[in-house]
Amino acid sequence: MKKKRISITDIAQALQVTPSTVSRALNGGGKVSEKKRQEIISLAKKLGYRPNPIAKSLLENRTNTIGLILPEFTHHFYSRVLAGIESVTSQAGYQLLICTSNENQNQEIKSTLTLLDARVDGILATISKMNDKFEHIQEVMDSGTPLVLVDRFSEEIETPYVISDDFKGAFSAVDYLCQIGCKNILHIKGPDNLSTTFNRFMGYKEALRKHEIEVKEELVLESSDPKLVEKIRFCLGDLHADGAFTYSDYLAFEIYKLAAELKITIPEELSVIGYADEPISTYINPTLSTVNQQPFEMGAMSANYLLNKINDSASPLEASRVDTKLILRESCRKMDG
Amino acid sequence: MKKKRISITDIAQALQVTPSTVSRALNGGGKVSEKKRQEIISLAKKLGYRPNPIAKSLLENRTNTIGLILPEFTHHFYSRVLAGIESVTSQAGYQLLICTSNENQNQEIKSTLTLLDARVDGILATISKMNDKFEHIQEVMDSGTPLVLVDRFSEEIETPYVISDDFKGAFSAVDYLCQIGCKNILHIKGPDNLSTTFNRFMGYKEALRKHEIEVKEELVLESSDPKLVEKIRFCLGDLHADGAFTYSDYLAFEIYKLAAELKITIPEELSVIGYADEPISTYINPTLSTVNQQPFEMGAMSANYLLNKINDSASPLEASRVDTKLILRESCRKMDG
Repeated sequence: MKKKRISITDIAQALQVTPSTVSRALNGGGKVSEKKRQEIISLAKKLGYRPNPIAKSLLENRTNTIGLILPEFTHHFYSRVLAGIESVTSQAGYQLLICTSNENQNQEIKSTLTLLDARVDGILATISKMNDKFEHIQEVMDSGTPLVLVDRFSEEIETPYVISDDFKGAFSAVDYLCQIGCKNILHIKGPDNLSTTFNRFMGYKEALRKHEIEVKEELVLESSDPKLVEKIRFCLGDLHADGAFTYSDYLAFEIYKLAAELKITIPEELSVIGYADEPISTYINPTLSTVNQQPFEMGAMSANYLLNKINDSASPLEASRVDTKLILRESCRKMDG
Repeated sequence: MKKKRISITDIAQALQVTPSTVSRALNGGGKVSEKKRQEIISLAKKLGYRPNPIAKSLLENRTNTIGLILPEFTHHFYSRVLAGIESVTSQAGYQLLICTSNENQNQEIKSTLTLLDARVDGILATISKMNDKFEHIQEVMDSGTPLVLVDRFSEEIETPYVISDDFKGAFSAVDYLCQIGCKNILHIKGPDNLSTTFNRFMGYKEALRKHEIEVKEELVLESSDPKLVEKIRFCLGDLHADGAFTYSDYLAFEIYKLAAELKITIPEELSVIGYADEPISTYINPTLSTVNQQPFEMGAMSANYLLNKINDSASPLEASRVDTKLILRESCRKMDG
């Protein structure tokens, strides 16, 4: 069983003084003889007394904690977002309490309530992929707890957010492939129903449009397609794809494997660009060109928005799309000239 | 007829807010707008609401949350430990509150106090690398909050723990290199002062001893050595190392790069084994043999120990060294025969 927390009353009873004497002695205020003060401090120490944080925070109305809801840490992306958040919050003297949702909405709802119960001063959240309920988010806002959305946002939630510019990120990648002369550019899309999947596909199409290249349906594949491997093989072998832009670095690696099987050389015959700049992109051979989303900067920016909101609830609604960076490595042919 | 007792849910339904908003408004805790709070209090009064004392005391003794202190999420290892913990705690209806220490002891101390303040029912902790103060750990134990150490332990703390068997892990790797005929086995050690560094080095030495191979000082390198690259080059080129065992998969990758530079082929001329089974090990070419520490199993086991302790404070002190698994991939020559 959990041991009872030592209270001021316990110390008062043990020393036969009033609780308010104990409180004055411990808080350094009021009239207490030096001898008595030492006696009280010494017993408090011995019993492991710590001020009740809830009572304390009721007075101050601050716990100096920030709640963070992230989907998972399997992708390097979120550990970089976390690092960016920490760089700001630790500087400002805040502790982070992190919950993971595993892309499960019920888990996200529970996490949100747990953080509210822990009386965090604000919440940073990446809402789970299949979010269709927003009551828990509304509850955070009703409670007056400042909230900032990171990486994903919903038009139904009017609160500050920081997201990545997926459209521009994809556009810059495919625009580059066109510039180095690729004509048949394969695209592997991400999971259905994700706005990031949609926006990256739009960026792909817009870049082709700019270069007056027709979008060929058979060159656009779905990552969830059970026949994905066969279809990539068909695109590389029969359709002579000379460029590839994938929703993730991991999908680019699938292309590497099939290109090796078909004896198609990267980058001489096929230029490849992934997405997210996962650590693997520098370890595979040839090293992979990719789109970096600047997750550290996203995290830091969202933490700053939250601190602004905590310090001034009337601060204007801040929102940003963080620019992506195209990282060129060995998997792309060099620009002519 | 006895009137039905008015519950928080009744008030919540009448005002179209969630029960937890009502609860926070009535208990004076949490953040509820003043207008909403007055509305709730006034309705509660009108309906004659009285808190259910049993539900209340149950609420106060248990929060159904478990605190987790991990160093960071940059290494895949900790995200797998987390997944293992979650697999057990979510099944048992507990919420996790996670704090990261970034291997910084002051940060770890603050995190510990934050978790105690959040009144978690138990704590799982990986203590930071340079831990020399234990007052905060003692405070957890004095508070009666069950504690289990994960991945790292200290002889100064008498509490259940789950760690990896680094000695055996290293021994199995180097024993295998000897069995396939390696005679000059390079070892790159990890950071100083870490028990894992020491234990893996001991495993290396013990395997050599078993095969009656002398430990050559010049084949044992320090990862922090500013001249590491030159020294690896010397070991591979001049000392004709035919095997390598490294503290981490990332260090093995350094060997890959220098072997390529010196035109030494892996595995024909040099067999390499890393440690930790990071995702990169399956993406680099040739794929890397490594020692898997079963982090998921470590996480699950430590969570089970904690639940046992939460449910029965008199439960015996449980402690385990989790077995490692040697994962053989393309970077090692096949066994003869």
